Amino acid sequence: MQISSPQPPLPADDLDLLDRYWRAANYLSVGQIYLLDNPLLREPLKPEHIKPRLLGHWGTTPGLNFIYAHLNRAIAAQDLNVIYVCGPGHGGPGMVANTYLEGSYSEIYPDITRDADGLRKLFRQFSFPGGIPSHAAPETPGSIHEGGELGYALVHAYGAALDNPDLIVACVVGDGEAETGPLAASWHSNKFLNPAHDGAVLPILHLNGYKIANPTVLGRMADPEIRSLFEGYGYAPLFVEGDEPQAMHRQMADALDVALASIRSIQQNARQPDAVIHRPRWPMIVLRSPKGWTGPKEVDGLKVEGFWRAHQVPIGNPRRNPQHLALLEAWMKSYQPETLFDATGHLAPELQALAPKGARRMGANPHANGGLLKRELKLPDYRAFAVDIRSPGETIAEATREFGKFLREVFTLNEATRNFRIMGPDETASNRLDAVFDVTERVWMEGIEPYDVHLAQDGRVMEVLSEHLCQGWLEGYLLTGRHGFFSCYEAFIHIVDSMFNQHAKWLKVARELPWRRSIASLNYLLTSHVWRQDHNGFSHQDPGFVDLVANKKADIVRIYLPPDANTLLWIADHCLRTYDRINVIVAGKQPAPQWLSMTDAATHCDAGIGIWSWAGTGPADAEPDVVMACAGDVPTLETLAAVTLLRKELPELKIRVVNVVDLMTLQPAKEHPHGLSDRDFDSLFTTDKPVIFAYHGYPYLIHRLTYSRTNHAGMHVRGFIEEGTTTTPFDMVVLNELDRFHLAIEAIERVPGLSVSAAAVKQKFRDALIAHARYIRAHGEDMPEIRDWVWQNSAGGTTPVQAGD
Amino acid sequence: MQISSPQPPLPADDLDLLDRYWRAANYLSVGQIYLLDNPLLREPLKPEHIKPRLLGHWGTTPGLNFIYAHLNRAIAAQDLNVIYVCGPGHGGPGMVANTYLEGSYSEIYPDITRDADGLRKLFRQFSFPGGIPSHAAPETPGSIHEGGELGYALVHAYGAALDNPDLIVACVVGDGEAETGPLAASWHSNKFLNPAHDGAVLPILHLNGYKIANPTVLGRMADPEIRSLFEGYGYAPLFVEGDEPQAMHRQMADALDVALASIRSIQQNARQPDAVIHRPRWPMIVLRSPKGWTGPKEVDGLKVEGFWRAHQVPIGNPRRNPQHLALLEAWMKSYQPETLFDATGHLAPELQALAPKGARRMGANPHANGGLLKRELKLPDYRAFAVDIRSPGETIAEATREFGKFLREVFTLNEATRNFRIMGPDETASNRLDAVFDVTERVWMEGIEPYDVHLAQDGRVMEVLSEHLCQGWLEGYLLTGRHGFFSCYEAFIHIVDSMFNQHAKWLKVARELPWRRSIASLNYLLTSHVWRQDHNGFSHQDPGFVDLVANKKADIVRIYLPPDANTLLWIADHCLRTYDRINVIVAGKQPAPQWLSMTDAATHCDAGIGIWSWAGTGPADAEPDVVMACAGDVPTLETLAAVTLLRKELPELKIRVVNVVDLMTLQPAKEHPHGLSDRDFDSLFTTDKPVIFAYHGYPYLIHRLTYSRTNHAGMHVRGFIEEGTTTTPFDMVVLNELDRFHLAIEAIERVPGLSVSAAAVKQKFRDALIAHARYIRAHGEDMPEIRDWVWQNSAGGTTPVQAGD
Repeated sequence: MQISSPQPPLPADDLDLLDRYWRAANYLSVGQIYLLDNPLLREPLKPEHIKPRLLGHWGTTPGLNFIYAHLNRAIAAQDLNVIYVCGPGHGGPGMVANTYLEGSYSEIYPDITRDADGLRKLFRQFSFPGGIPSHAAPETPGSIHEGGELGYALVHAYGAALDNPDLIVACVVGDGEAETGPLAASWHSNKFLNPAHDGAVLPILHLNGYKIANPTVLGRMADPEIRSLFEGYGYAPLFVEGDEPQAMHRQMADALDVALASIRSIQQNARQPDAVIHRPRWPMIVLRSPKGWTGPKEVDGLKVEGFWRAHQVPIGNPRRNPQHLALLEAWMKSYQPETLFDATGHLAPELQALAPKGARRMGANPHANGGLLKRELKLPDYRAFAVDIRSPGETIAEATREFGKFLREVFTLNEATRNFRIMGPDETASNRLDAVFDVTERVWMEGIEPYDVHLAQDGRVMEVLSEHLCQGWLEGYLLTGRHGFFSCYEAFIHIVDSMFNQHAKWLKVARELPWRRSIASLNYLLTSHVWRQDHNGFSHQDPGFVDLVANKKADIVRIYLPPDANTLLWIADHCLRTYDRINVIVAGKQPAPQWLSMTDAATHCDAGIGIWSWAGTGPADAEPDVVMACAGDVPTLETLAAVTLLRKELPELKIRVVNVVDLMTLQPAKEHPHGLSDRDFDSLFTTDKPVIFAYHGYPYLIHRLTYSRTNHAGMHVRGFIEEGTTTTPFDMVVLNELDRFHLAIEAIERVPGLSVSAAAVKQKFRDALIAHARYIRAHGEDMPEIRDWVWQNSAGGTTPVQAGD
Repeated sequence: MQISSPQPPLPADDLDLLDRYWRAANYLSVGQIYLLDNPLLREPLKPEHIKPRLLGHWGTTPGLNFIYAHLNRAIAAQDLNVIYVCGPGHGGPGMVANTYLEGSYSEIYPDITRDADGLRKLFRQFSFPGGIPSHAAPETPGSIHEGGELGYALVHAYGAALDNPDLIVACVVGDGEAETGPLAASWHSNKFLNPAHDGAVLPILHLNGYKIANPTVLGRMADPEIRSLFEGYGYAPLFVEGDEPQAMHRQMADALDVALASIRSIQQNARQPDAVIHRPRWPMIVLRSPKGWTGPKEVDGLKVEGFWRAHQVPIGNPRRNPQHLALLEAWMKSYQPETLFDATGHLAPELQALAPKGARRMGANPHANGGLLKRELKLPDYRAFAVDIRSPGETIAEATREFGKFLREVFTLNEATRNFRIMGPDETASNRLDAVFDVTERVWMEGIEPYDVHLAQDGRVMEVLSEHLCQGWLEGYLLTGRHGFFSCYEAFIHIVDSMFNQHAKWLKVARELPWRRSIASLNYLLTSHVWRQDHNGFSHQDPGFVDLVANKKADIVRIYLPPDANTLLWIADHCLRTYDRINVIVAGKQPAPQWLSMTDAATHCDAGIGIWSWAGTGPADAEPDVVMACAGDVPTLETLAAVTLLRKELPELKIRVVNVVDLMTLQPAKEHPHGLSDRDFDSLFTTDKPVIFAYHGYPYLIHRLTYSRTNHAGMHVRGFIEEGTTTTPFDMVVLNELDRFHLAIEAIERVPGLSVSAAAVKQKFRDALIAHARYIRAHGEDMPEIRDWVWQNSAGGTTPVQAGD
């Protein structure tokens, strides 16, 4: 590693101040876990000063405080722009203590004053009903990362650093978290970070050796193996190891200076005009310090400091056990609070002076409240990308390919601000969004060969075969105030179910905090969906992600199923304009008939649901015999084909076609802001006529959304019933009984009093299914009349497009 | 690396035979992708010989075939017991080709004969409707691993090797898959493999450089970095690199001999009497070979071999483009099929002689059809672990702690056969299953310190902070014929949603294959559940996993919510006796009132649902005014408390209490084998009385399961509505309106014609909620009368336990 400008070694006095600052943070951390009152220990500690329920985690905290103090020093000395991503679970006491010490906490929460009364409240609120959680969370100033579910600290850090050339993201990775899959893959994010245009991530692997009740895998690996592992990942590790505070302060200050100098050197080199950039070997710090460092060495004769017993609350029962009470008091007094805080509870001025000032404080850095820095995404007029539709079904187009052209313009319009990226697991082209490669490339910091295509060091498309990394990078990018899109195979988005959950939880809590500014929505485009896995088969067939999404708070989530290209364009444009939400769009990529002109698409999507009067039979204003409802591109196609069959065979049948784009319209208005009123719902679905509902996913979701509607007993939903294999597109819908023939047969069966010919018609449809099965097994493809089927209106011709409803 | 017995170098003739065998496999692989007919190319290739839809993947296949041929050689030469885990997606053609060549395919599928007619069928069925998928799958002989969703090859391999001391699991990891999080963490599995008692995993990292449309991260890393990375992971990498077949055969044969000698040496050393074992440095092979090796170098002027264009079907249109047809014919003929197969399509005898014999063939190894080797799990009498219940609610116990005692005996009874393990992310003790540590330990191959507890090199509890590894190890263990259990925090089981999906799909397909023998069910114990995250808060609160589970095929999945210890014991015993299923048990770990004696628990669990007549009010045989239903431990407690409140305040109200243990009983009998008939359902829930249903998870699931029942309109479900934080247990249920007061108020509101005092009673309950809120904010804990509430019967005393229904 070439170091251009190491800092001079720290004077001993500075080290002493650092140590006092660290002790103050440790003192406040212990206080949060234990104390209801007597925050400065100015009177002897008594049982009534202790919280009745001791909930919190000490183990990781002193290490986190140690790092925070050292980062403060470096930020102040070098005027750095740094945020702190706190990976270890339950690091909350430390993050709260430090933002309190630097003053950012009290600015956001004025009730928590910087005096003895504020200290008392600070202690009391922690892990207390109505208070704050025990890990870094949306409530924590300076945080973009929840220390709840582990695994995503480093990928969030990289997402934050992208396109923020002056930002350094200090990311503490706990050795527990380091065992998770997503974290293990996240180290490779350095292959996607451009030192010229992006900021830096400084990973600090904090090996304190233990999890809840076990040693950690990385903690027990010897240094040479750790060094080898992280050099293999492409880093230059700096080791800081020990337990003696003074020596550790010296080591850490040196290591941090070397790391920061290395970052500066890498960036300066890369930012020279005409610089040729090779992926740099970024620095990282490996900090080995005892779990529960500076806490009690033993409790009740059992080892605590440097062991997993320090994980949560090291001294278990100070309220009822006098020895425990005395031990706690001795522990807290070992930090010498009287030397840290004055009699009124104010932090000593010389310690206050150590913290960075204003927005340089990590608790006040605007990057950690990204909405503050957010610039509106510039969007082109989606109407300019409209697929020309003269009559429904006549034009064939690939919905995502058209959307790709729109995305291309989004890149162009926002090129200067560099605040838009798309992520995908190696599927941008496969998902037919490749128009974007007209104006940008895939980012790639490894070597690029002459025959490679669409790779560049400054590309804005991020592809890696890890849905975890795609999701995590995007989350980090959005949380720091930018915009983006994640396109993914529908089945494999389940890989990030839990990350989706956690992000939805973050948004829910963040929206309740007035000081947190809105961030751009997380937008998913799920394509290569369940119905078109012609060569991938059963393992790639799962439409259940939206079921998970529908469990989350109504004001956070939206689910859209645009049936064609123009509806996809409208919906995607809409989603990119929203904030603080998670939008899920499920759309096809295969050539498919197009139904709505852009004008009609806008009307239809704005309503979210509507009658397609041009597609029904019988007088448009008549009460139908049956409602054929559909949601999703393939179900829409099969529904319209079923109507065609029925119109020909049973012309007297009055069919209403209802198409659903916005799935949330089906819910009652009181449960979701997009939900239809019961009156509107009834006017679409009738109160008593059979509804044959062809749905893209698992049919239960439709029942769940509509169970309280008047006509729920009349809803007959078909969807994916977990039957799949490698087969033709039409065979897939047949296997799941979602095809035109099954739909038409069910319509006949559900409508009472049909003519005697209905039975013969049903038989005819059943025969068609048998013929289909024979044909594909003989020929390996769908029958031409099904493959090439085209919608025709009742006169046997095409119908000019008109407004849906 | 100490190599005790390297093999002598291979004679040139042997290398030539190997190369011919490899060419045969490559020929068969290409044939599967392209040919409908003319399998031996004995006549000129014509368009009608080509499949109409070309679906399949060539890119990874020649490398997989190369490895297979070399493993065959080593197995035959050294009489090894080896299975092949094929990680790369879409490696199907290669696995099918090789099992066909060795004869195991035709033994399982006698219709696919080892002659020209069989070859024709073999080719035709691939990626053909009704045929076989394009990746290794349950249909593939010798496979325990689906090459669909990527990331789990290596963790499956380790799961298979555990407790199989003579088995070598050769695991090919593609460089695409290597980018995923689960795979990146899986390399650390070597810290949990004991060379004395377990078999070996031989990872073969196959760097062919490209994914679908991108280079791979590991493929572009230079050898020193790859070496450093894998040495850091604890392996000794052996490099095999190039594209010239003869040189590559020589390198690969040598590398494999070195690796196998190293494995033998490690195992021999570890298996000496009194051997002191340090974690060995296991060998691995890094194979760099071109993507689409031996395929066309260019097509239409664009680079194919050694590039991502070789990923799927390299020559796109041989049916309509004569140049493509000629190119395909030349490619296939380059393998010289006439030198590999005789005129009738039989593989040349000297090539047949290369394959191992009988069960040594990797397609016939019984470990890859684990049901063949499965031994019944010995289970103790669960009744011996019964919690003594004199009257409902009087005894307090921790359900999982009691179950832990049962598990301890399971370990003891199956110690000799070493075929039972439990997995968990560092939570076995936290989940209060620690009785198991009386008889076994956590397995740990890193250093063990004197103060460590419950760590041992031969422990049978596997803990790592990665749900992916826990799930994957267990899957591999079960698929090879053993038994196990995965206990996990309820919220974080979502991390493995997608792995669950894939395992459910595997089971569904495997059950349809008569040759696949039943394997033990995958059993989840979800504890530390949504209602008791007192110190973890919102990020740890998500009960949605069961919603995902309920989407899967009814004959695969079961969901149980035992309300106390005795019901948990019965259910867990039951689950451990089942096969080919996924059983999900959600149970509490906190001290809680116990309701049913073991006799009653057995009756209740056997039915899955029942009336708790002792808990209701009014005459037992009377039609109730209201049904109070509950599922889950906390909802059951709150329901019984609500009944107590109502009984006191409105003694005239006739309440029936229904408890649900087996959630699938709620579904119609036609949809799930455990589903109640409509008649039975109506007799429990009435056809018209209000049902106040307190449910453990998201309330929608109950609506979804019951929407077609007579009294569905009367079902009022309360559950988790995504409101959570760090707070007291009772405050959590209040936040979600699932508490006794909300339940009682709703009962009053739903029952028509109650006495005038009902309004006053409701107000009293509302006042109690306000008092509760004030109390916990002042004291930080629940009011004593709520915390210490005890069930009392209508006489104000306790009720002797009697059968539930």
